[in-house]
Amino acid sequence: MTPIPSFRLACVQFRPDVGQNDGNRARTVALIEEAVRRGASLVVLPELSSSGYQFESRDEALAAGEPLSGGPTVAAWTEVAHEHGIHVVGGVAERDGDRLYNSSVVIGPSGLIGSYRKTHLWNAENTIFTPGDLGFPVFDTALGRLSVLICYDGWFPETYRACALGGADLICVPTNWVPMSGLPAGAPAMATILTQAAAHSNGVYIAAADRIGVERGQAFIGQSVIVADSGQVLAGPASSDAEEIIFATIDVEAARARRTWNQFNNPITDRRPEIYDSLTQRS
Amino acid sequence: MTPIPSFRLACVQFRPDVGQNDGNRARTVALIEEAVRRGASLVVLPELSSSGYQFESRDEALAAGEPLSGGPTVAAWTEVAHEHGIHVVGGVAERDGDRLYNSSVVIGPSGLIGSYRKTHLWNAENTIFTPGDLGFPVFDTALGRLSVLICYDGWFPETYRACALGGADLICVPTNWVPMSGLPAGAPAMATILTQAAAHSNGVYIAAADRIGVERGQAFIGQSVIVADSGQVLAGPASSDAEEIIFATIDVEAARARRTWNQFNNPITDRRPEIYDSLTQRS
Repeated sequence: MTPIPSFRLACVQFRPDVGQNDGNRARTVALIEEAVRRGASLVVLPELSSSGYQFESRDEALAAGEPLSGGPTVAAWTEVAHEHGIHVVGGVAERDGDRLYNSSVVIGPSGLIGSYRKTHLWNAENTIFTPGDLGFPVFDTALGRLSVLICYDGWFPETYRACALGGADLICVPTNWVPMSGLPAGAPAMATILTQAAAHSNGVYIAAADRIGVERGQAFIGQSVIVADSGQVLAGPASSDAEEIIFATIDVEAARARRTWNQFNNPITDRRPEIYDSLTQRS
Repeated sequence: MTPIPSFRLACVQFRPDVGQNDGNRARTVALIEEAVRRGASLVVLPELSSSGYQFESRDEALAAGEPLSGGPTVAAWTEVAHEHGIHVVGGVAERDGDRLYNSSVVIGPSGLIGSYRKTHLWNAENTIFTPGDLGFPVFDTALGRLSVLICYDGWFPETYRACALGGADLICVPTNWVPMSGLPAGAPAMATILTQAAAHSNGVYIAAADRIGVERGQAFIGQSVIVADSGQVLAGPASSDAEEIIFATIDVEAARARRTWNQFNNPITDRRPEIYDSLTQRS
């Protein structure tokens, strides 16, 4: 598809409540509508916006899981996307039989375009979710070629690179970032730094929507951020604890042109895959 | 080898002059000796410390090239390393027959341990140097397992990852960083951000020694930096235009232990190489 010339993207930062799917769904719809009133054509929501994060057991998580097709969260987001002619990317606890995936959906005005299942699971997620099995899809939409990564996926530069090699212009990151140790107080969050590095070295936009709040003792850091293909921060980092919507203008055609850095260099075509063999060796 | 418990590392930031190999060599030896007086056991020097950077022609560069074994720069650095029982990593324009490589050597008290040839060439380097053909070696030294990358190599997260997968504890980066466009004045250099991101996502120390000065119209940005495996900046960024030596204490055994982040997570073993296939596909 030929993408539209440029559009306004919103990252919604809010606090889902664990197990309160109905309330979370209503809150996300209200926030999407607020973002639309403020000009957004694409709204990115946090990881597990449907369900909250800090489950006490796999059974509790299963009860909060939903199918994507026909599930209430996808239905609600599809309705609002259709009504306003917008796109929505957001996190859903996906139930598929007895399996749970930490998923995110891509929804357009005509409904569900596709989904991504988180491939790198953080901490106790390993006791609840099945690792993603959909690879790193790229969705060719009216806004450009979109990919999705979730939270800890971003700690693996391979993930951003795989999306870029697949042709992604913009990578949406629904996330539930937690504090990292080993960094001095007041320093930029490692999440910000990893996001800037990935945007720059792949020549792609990245839009990360984080949650806020402390849930059953687990803190989240907020600081949602939208980064240009240069690595420049376009919006955010948002606050660490307030509900907030951040906005930036995305122009994917311009980013594609900017990927030619000079007569000789382009961050994708300068790769030397013939000497990267160790990266795909199974241990 | 079992590495020594901890040691002091120095990154030397200075201005080589193009084609003035004798003067550059004398200056590097003096600066290595100053770093040793201030406690360094490992001294990292910039890219092309032997020769300067901004050649007007391939012939000029060939004339400034040296063999590594038996060449005057390696001989001089070996002498000072032997005298003080230290290690030196630094950039040499390596002449091998009619070929030139943008190389860096790793030298210990007993002489040349090995070398690395820059694999990703920046801009007009493509008209002068042959791309490196030694892969991403890891040198098992008394200080820990060292790898070397050079400048634009760092724009490819594959390079840091390949070193880490090979077991590197510390990656030394002789560099000649140039200004990048698209970032606001006063923002951290993208070089700093890429270095922090690579250190954090691989759990390795990174020590980058940059040059300063404007050479035939080409500016360099200084800002040498030493980063811990957490991504925290330990020393620097140095100034953008002054000769300077920055120091930090390196403890590779501690970094190895810190790579276990929690009961489930480790940034290397959490990788999923079975889904990274696109990274090694030849175009």
